[in-house]
Amino acid sequence: MNFSITILGSGAALPTFSRNPSSQYIECNNRHILIDCGEGTQMQMRKFGVKFQRISHILISHLHGDHFFGLAGLLSTMHLLGRDKGITIYGPQGLEQIIRSQLEIGGTKLDFGITFITLDGKSSQLIFEDKLIEIHTFPLKHRVPTNGFLIKEKTKEYNLLGDLFKQDGLSIKFIQKFKNGEDVVDENGKTHYFKDYTTPPPPTRSYAYCSDTIYYENIIPSISNVDLLYHEATFTELHKQRAKATFHSTAIDAAKIAIKANVKKLLLGHISSRFENGDEHLKEAKTVFDNTIVVEDGNNFEV
Amino acid sequence: MNFSITILGSGAALPTFSRNPSSQYIECNNRHILIDCGEGTQMQMRKFGVKFQRISHILISHLHGDHFFGLAGLLSTMHLLGRDKGITIYGPQGLEQIIRSQLEIGGTKLDFGITFITLDGKSSQLIFEDKLIEIHTFPLKHRVPTNGFLIKEKTKEYNLLGDLFKQDGLSIKFIQKFKNGEDVVDENGKTHYFKDYTTPPPPTRSYAYCSDTIYYENIIPSISNVDLLYHEATFTELHKQRAKATFHSTAIDAAKIAIKANVKKLLLGHISSRFENGDEHLKEAKTVFDNTIVVEDGNNFEV
Repeated sequence: MNFSITILGSGAALPTFSRNPSSQYIECNNRHILIDCGEGTQMQMRKFGVKFQRISHILISHLHGDHFFGLAGLLSTMHLLGRDKGITIYGPQGLEQIIRSQLEIGGTKLDFGITFITLDGKSSQLIFEDKLIEIHTFPLKHRVPTNGFLIKEKTKEYNLLGDLFKQDGLSIKFIQKFKNGEDVVDENGKTHYFKDYTTPPPPTRSYAYCSDTIYYENIIPSISNVDLLYHEATFTELHKQRAKATFHSTAIDAAKIAIKANVKKLLLGHISSRFENGDEHLKEAKTVFDNTIVVEDGNNFEV
Repeated sequence: MNFSITILGSGAALPTFSRNPSSQYIECNNRHILIDCGEGTQMQMRKFGVKFQRISHILISHLHGDHFFGLAGLLSTMHLLGRDKGITIYGPQGLEQIIRSQLEIGGTKLDFGITFITLDGKSSQLIFEDKLIEIHTFPLKHRVPTNGFLIKEKTKEYNLLGDLFKQDGLSIKFIQKFKNGEDVVDENGKTHYFKDYTTPPPPTRSYAYCSDTIYYENIIPSISNVDLLYHEATFTELHKQRAKATFHSTAIDAAKIAIKANVKKLLLGHISSRFENGDEHLKEAKTVFDNTIVVEDGNNFEV
C-alpha cells in the first residue's frame, strides 16, 4: 500500500521564488491528507499533480499565516470544482471562525460540509483512526499554540501461509483468527497455533511532522522510531540566537531530535528566505544525523 | 511621467497554470497602487519585479476570494520585510474586520499602520487626490457590492515659453500664474495673457478597471474617454447565459462598453479557467472594438 509525502511548500514566512509557504500532501493507504495550507497551496497542488477532491482531512498546525492563508482559497476551489463530499479540518481554536468568515463575506455557500475539530495544543491525542491509519497530534513549542502530527499505519495482519493451511485441511473459519495473531482451539480441543501458519505482518510505517517549533525534547515520545520525520529547520547555527528568540529550530536542533527519537530518516524544511539553498543546513545536520535531506518544493518521499 | 499597468493576475475564480487570480499593479506619476489582491499576488509581485514597499494604496473591488485572499499574506510580508510606512486600503464593508482578524489570530502586530476606507459601492466618488493623481470609484453590478476604479492624472500645468517670457522682461512672480492658465494684471494695469506665453498642457491620461461586472451601461459616464480600459470578460458568446446568470461579462459585452464609452484601448481579463487561451475572446471583441488585447499575467501596458 502507498505511503508517500509530497512537499508543496518548504519555505518559512516569506515565500521565495523556489519555496512556497508550508504545505504537504500525504497519501497513506489510500487516505489523502493535507498538512498545513499556506498561501498558494492550491497552485502548488495543481503544479505537482495533486488531486484536490481526494483530500478528506486537512491538518493545520498553527495559525501563523504561512501555515493557513491558503485554506479559504482551496476550499472555494474545491466548491467551484463541484465537490459534495465532506471534509474534516483539524486546527487550533479560532480557525473555524476565520475560515467561515472569509467564505461568508463573499456570499460563498459551500456545497459540501466542513467538520472543524479544534485541537487544544496541550496534550498528545489520537484524533483520527480507521481500519488502516491513525492520526495523532502532539504539542510543539512555538509562539502560538502549535500541533505536530503523526500519521501511522494500523498494525497489519499476519500473512497466512495458504498452502500449508490448505494442506492441513483446517477450517476456513480459522483464517481471520490466524491473521489477527490468535491461536484457535478446534472442536476436538486441539490448539492450532497461528505462528505455525503465518509469517509476521510487515512492519507498520509512520511519518511525523514537526513545524513550527523550538528545540523541544518533549516531542520525542510521540515521534520515537518513526520511519520519516519532517522537522522544521528555519535557521542554521549562525542564527541560533534568532532561532531561540523566535521559537524556531536550527538544522542541528532538528538532527538532535532525530537521533534521540531514533527515527530512520530526517527531512528538513521551513527554510528561511535568507538562505539561497539548503547546503549549510544539510552540512550541519549531517554532523549529528547522517540520513538527512533538505526538501524542495515538489519533492516526493516514500515512507 | 510614468503611467503603467502590470497584470499580476488575469484569471477568474479558479487559478490555472498561467493565470493567477485578479491583481494589478499601477504606477502613475510615481504613485504606486495595487488593485485587487487574489491569492498568490505576493508571489506574482516577486516574479514580475514589483517592489512591495512602494505601494501606498490598495484598492479592493469586492469580497469574492479571488480578489482579496492574498491581502493578509501580502501585509504580513510587508511587515516581515520591515515596513514602517503606513498604507491605505479601500474596499467594501467587512474587509477591515476580516483582514485584522486574520492577522490578529496569529499574533501578528504590524509595525505599520493601515487606514481602511470603506466604499459603499453605491455611488461614484473621488476617493483620493494629491497634486498629481486622482482615484475615483464607481459602482459595478455583480453578485455582491463591487467597485470599479478610475485612476487619472491631475490636469497638468501649461508649458511656459521661457525664452519669450525672458525676452519681454516679465516678473518671475507671473510664472506660476501662467502655468496655472491665469492671466495677470501688472502694477501698471496692463493685462498679460497666459496664452501668449504658454503652450497647452499635455493631455491627462486615465485608466479604468472594471471587474467583476455584468454588462452595465451605468458605468459609461465614469469611464468615458479613458486611454485604457480593463474590463472583465470571463466568458465568450458561447456562455452568454452563464455570464448573465453569474453577473459576469462576455468579451462582446466588454467591447460594447469600450465603444460606447469612447475609450482608446481595451484590455480583457478575468478569463475563465475553462479557456485554454484568449483567442476566442479576442476574435469576438474585435468584431465590435478593434483596439483590444486579451491580457496575460506579467503583461505591462503604458497608458
